[in-house]
Amino acid sequence: MDPDLLLSRRDLDFLLFDWLDVAGLAARPPYSEHGRETFDAFLDVSAELAASHFAPHNAVGDANEPQFDGERVTLIPEIGVALRAFADAGLLSAGMAEEHGGVQLPAVVQQACFAWFQAANVSTSGYSLLAMANANLMLAHGTPEQVTRFAVPILDGRWFGTMCLSEPQAGSSLADVATRAVPQGDGTYRLFGNKMWISGGEHDLGDNIVHLVLARVEGAPPGVKGLSLFATPKFVVGEDGSVGERNDVVLAGLNHKMGFRGTVNTVLNFGEGTHRPGGAPGAVGELVGEEGSGLAVMFHMMNEARIGVGAGAVALGYTGYLRSLDYARGRVQGRPLDARDPASAPVAIVEHADVRRMLLAQKSYVEGGLALVLRAALLVDDKRTHPDTAHRERAGALLDVLTPIVKSWPSQWCLAANDLAIQVHGGYGYTREYGVEQLYRDNRLNPIHEGTHGIQAQDLLGRKLVQARGSGLDLLGAVIAETCERARATGDPTLASYADQVGDVSASFATAVARAWESGEPRRALVNATSGLEAAGHLVLAWTWLDLLVAAHGRAGDFFDGKRAAGRYFLTHELPKVGPMLDLLAGGDQLFNEVDPVWL
Amino acid sequence: MDPDLLLSRRDLDFLLFDWLDVAGLAARPPYSEHGRETFDAFLDVSAELAASHFAPHNAVGDANEPQFDGERVTLIPEIGVALRAFADAGLLSAGMAEEHGGVQLPAVVQQACFAWFQAANVSTSGYSLLAMANANLMLAHGTPEQVTRFAVPILDGRWFGTMCLSEPQAGSSLADVATRAVPQGDGTYRLFGNKMWISGGEHDLGDNIVHLVLARVEGAPPGVKGLSLFATPKFVVGEDGSVGERNDVVLAGLNHKMGFRGTVNTVLNFGEGTHRPGGAPGAVGELVGEEGSGLAVMFHMMNEARIGVGAGAVALGYTGYLRSLDYARGRVQGRPLDARDPASAPVAIVEHADVRRMLLAQKSYVEGGLALVLRAALLVDDKRTHPDTAHRERAGALLDVLTPIVKSWPSQWCLAANDLAIQVHGGYGYTREYGVEQLYRDNRLNPIHEGTHGIQAQDLLGRKLVQARGSGLDLLGAVIAETCERARATGDPTLASYADQVGDVSASFATAVARAWESGEPRRALVNATSGLEAAGHLVLAWTWLDLLVAAHGRAGDFFDGKRAAGRYFLTHELPKVGPMLDLLAGGDQLFNEVDPVWL
Repeated sequence: MDPDLLLSRRDLDFLLFDWLDVAGLAARPPYSEHGRETFDAFLDVSAELAASHFAPHNAVGDANEPQFDGERVTLIPEIGVALRAFADAGLLSAGMAEEHGGVQLPAVVQQACFAWFQAANVSTSGYSLLAMANANLMLAHGTPEQVTRFAVPILDGRWFGTMCLSEPQAGSSLADVATRAVPQGDGTYRLFGNKMWISGGEHDLGDNIVHLVLARVEGAPPGVKGLSLFATPKFVVGEDGSVGERNDVVLAGLNHKMGFRGTVNTVLNFGEGTHRPGGAPGAVGELVGEEGSGLAVMFHMMNEARIGVGAGAVALGYTGYLRSLDYARGRVQGRPLDARDPASAPVAIVEHADVRRMLLAQKSYVEGGLALVLRAALLVDDKRTHPDTAHRERAGALLDVLTPIVKSWPSQWCLAANDLAIQVHGGYGYTREYGVEQLYRDNRLNPIHEGTHGIQAQDLLGRKLVQARGSGLDLLGAVIAETCERARATGDPTLASYADQVGDVSASFATAVARAWESGEPRRALVNATSGLEAAGHLVLAWTWLDLLVAAHGRAGDFFDGKRAAGRYFLTHELPKVGPMLDLLAGGDQLFNEVDPVWL
Repeated sequence: MDPDLLLSRRDLDFLLFDWLDVAGLAARPPYSEHGRETFDAFLDVSAELAASHFAPHNAVGDANEPQFDGERVTLIPEIGVALRAFADAGLLSAGMAEEHGGVQLPAVVQQACFAWFQAANVSTSGYSLLAMANANLMLAHGTPEQVTRFAVPILDGRWFGTMCLSEPQAGSSLADVATRAVPQGDGTYRLFGNKMWISGGEHDLGDNIVHLVLARVEGAPPGVKGLSLFATPKFVVGEDGSVGERNDVVLAGLNHKMGFRGTVNTVLNFGEGTHRPGGAPGAVGELVGEEGSGLAVMFHMMNEARIGVGAGAVALGYTGYLRSLDYARGRVQGRPLDARDPASAPVAIVEHADVRRMLLAQKSYVEGGLALVLRAALLVDDKRTHPDTAHRERAGALLDVLTPIVKSWPSQWCLAANDLAIQVHGGYGYTREYGVEQLYRDNRLNPIHEGTHGIQAQDLLGRKLVQARGSGLDLLGAVIAETCERARATGDPTLASYADQVGDVSASFATAVARAWESGEPRRALVNATSGLEAAGHLVLAWTWLDLLVAAHGRAGDFFDGKRAAGRYFLTHELPKVGPMLDLLAGGDQLFNEVDPVWL
């Protein structure tokens, strides 16, 4: 597939090098080996590999799900070939330090590189995403020996990894995780329990699979405070890193999904007795971090995963936009509304106002979403490597506030973009021959996994904005106000008027959050949290678009005219939707608490 | 499947017999054989047959698409069995006069009966819907001989029918239909051309398939005025109705869709030379109606089909709601937000405010949508059989205005209901094991076929509301005002306040339509037509809910409390969304006309 139908390199260059000044990161010690040239090289190879090795089997993987014959799981061979090429290009470890085989690529560049793969084939790229997140967690929380034994083989592309959180009775509610970890007295543990929704849980892509398993040590308290994390590989790993006998981790079955079908999704049983490593019952597990720190450690991975979910949603939305634009330019159908002669030549559908509406909406969602995701990734870099301590702390705090939005907003609106991509294609879009319906099906997972839409709403309205005396809300208001000031400083009356709108909504949002929390009771305050999340999302995107328009100010050409059109669409057609949402949040209507389930 | 998971009979009884007083139709001569008892009997048999013969193979048909081996199309056998049972129960012909084998069942009861089948298996019921629409068109526009030869075998369930409008280059733009009809001088024609998206275009379910084909008689003018309609059966039909040799209608291929997979969807070639009936080239076709009246005749069928689309969207939404409600009552997960003890028992997810939000939203969409569809069907009855001429005309005029909304609103919002049904199920909803993802995929066709969402917007804002000096808009305003008056007359302050809101929105809508049309130029006026359509849809649904709340006024019990909760949701959480839409419509922002496609 033509890489120009996956993502826009022109847009990435604008976002990375104009808007975010990513080349300037090379001034910081960890990135001093880098500069625009190396960043360009990574972006080039990503676009090329995504188009040559990932896109071609995207529909094939969708139509040929992983098969389980009771013994082994079979994937289409293209998946392994693609993942090998990804690892061989150094992309798995690019973000790591040299000592772990990496080149210390900034997170923001890595995110941009990875977006090509997500746009080309979100299912196949899922195996890489899991591997990187798994290794990252181990680098942050494992012992040096664990890093060598578990993370390095993954970063080499020889092993793979999973995260095992959910159980049949514990999805959103991790407090109810029931998998038991029994200490063996020698520092090791044996695990017993069942895990659900485990992506990449079984396959033959590599020599081993490292499962990071949330479990409760016997005698630990109930709730999330009693959880610990265990590295529990498919094959037991010796102290020297050798791959040993089969651990007691058994595939109980596959889940068959609406989309994301190329990523094998499994039910895993730990310690059910199929194997007896070392002759004893239970799956051999090694504690990662400390006992009782499981949730905190896992959230290191989870927060990254949430940004990754947002990025994936954007990538799927972006390629859908480009494909529907390409279709709309080529598909001839109908005449302008003021055409009188039925014998006049029909026009390309991109000429019709309603088709332009659907294209501009998509453009505003996916380009705005990509900007948001890259800004978040730059905050990851700033938090880690900014030379100024206060700046590092502020970046971390802003990233905390933005994470539920980076996860949820693209999952909602870049999914809506995929819906519009289908609609632009008309009947053709509804067929599997055109691929946009697969994008929709793949993207539909994103509002569900790694914390549902509703969970994100509780995280934002119940924690991130209001904890520490509302410092998160204040910080968000402050960064938005900064952008509004810069917009006014351009002297452009259009930008000034957008700044007024964004400023007004920002103020109304802060008031609405305060009013929602007037009672101080979470149950009352959070009853309309989803309205609050969605309002916050549109506010943050309006701020993002305003910031992009400031960067585009005074610059001529189709590319920048396109930014202005999409920004205008977002500010004038989308931002006003926030009004009724804020009314609900501020008004505190208790309907959802008052309704009796027997009335439904 | 339990019929209680398909539709709510309690709700149907309320809508039909309380709200719409359908039993009262028996006072009219055509329906005098009927009464509550016969209506109940038809509803009973529909619920039972839908559950026993249609629902069980819904997922099977989705997973096992029709196969074409180059010779014939093979469907799963359950489809034929179900359709036979449907016909044997008299449901195909129920709405027809006795002379055509029917029992003159009112349209509104027939619509309610058919909704059971659409909820159970929209793909299999599609064959019946097409057959009925085909036969209805012939009854209205065919000669008595054509009725006997073509419609009667269809109504008997021995033959099937299609509507062949679209072509590869003519989807939304029927003006570009290029299929040629060559007169043979003996009153017959030979057809040459290619038709696209033909549902039910080839199969062995019956002894023949009657294709109703839109084509252009040689020498006819360009555009829609040059179109005529032809009955062009798979096997040539003799003057005595006998099934003769193979006509030159050839299956060129199957379309493979996102959903609706049990309904075979085909590309048909007419007159390509594979067969030569009577030794001559071309497919034998008989004119239905007059030359040049093809579009008008086809719109008879199309308007029915549009109501059928809306009804199908509602049925899919309704069963999704009931299934997600059932799941939410049974699925235990998480604790109330004010629970402090992590060891306390988790609760059913229906206890969580955000889950209730998703359930109430679905309830308001699907119950409101069902009410709208049944009201439209009653208008069909009123238009045909109301004893008072003025009432008949008013019913016809209101039906004209409502048709684009009956088609588009459920296609948007009952699809949104299916999306929420997936979300309520969490990860399980994303798997094919739970069936709600299929409902979404099936329903996603509805905003596309029988006139896309954008086409409905142009029909409503460009024709229905404004033609005849705006009489359609005035009529809609008048019927809404009547309901508001009745709401105020109850003396209930809540209903009075809802009436004020609905009245205000209705007035704002009329103003916005007038402002959009100030220039008198369609291109300017219709640039935001989709916002207008969506605002009109929410206004009509708010009116519908207000009407339902008036009917529920003063009545106690869980059922009526549920109506009040869903109505409150719609009036307070949904109706306010109309504000920004009306601002766009009235403001007349020309962004979509101004944007240059090269900027995209």
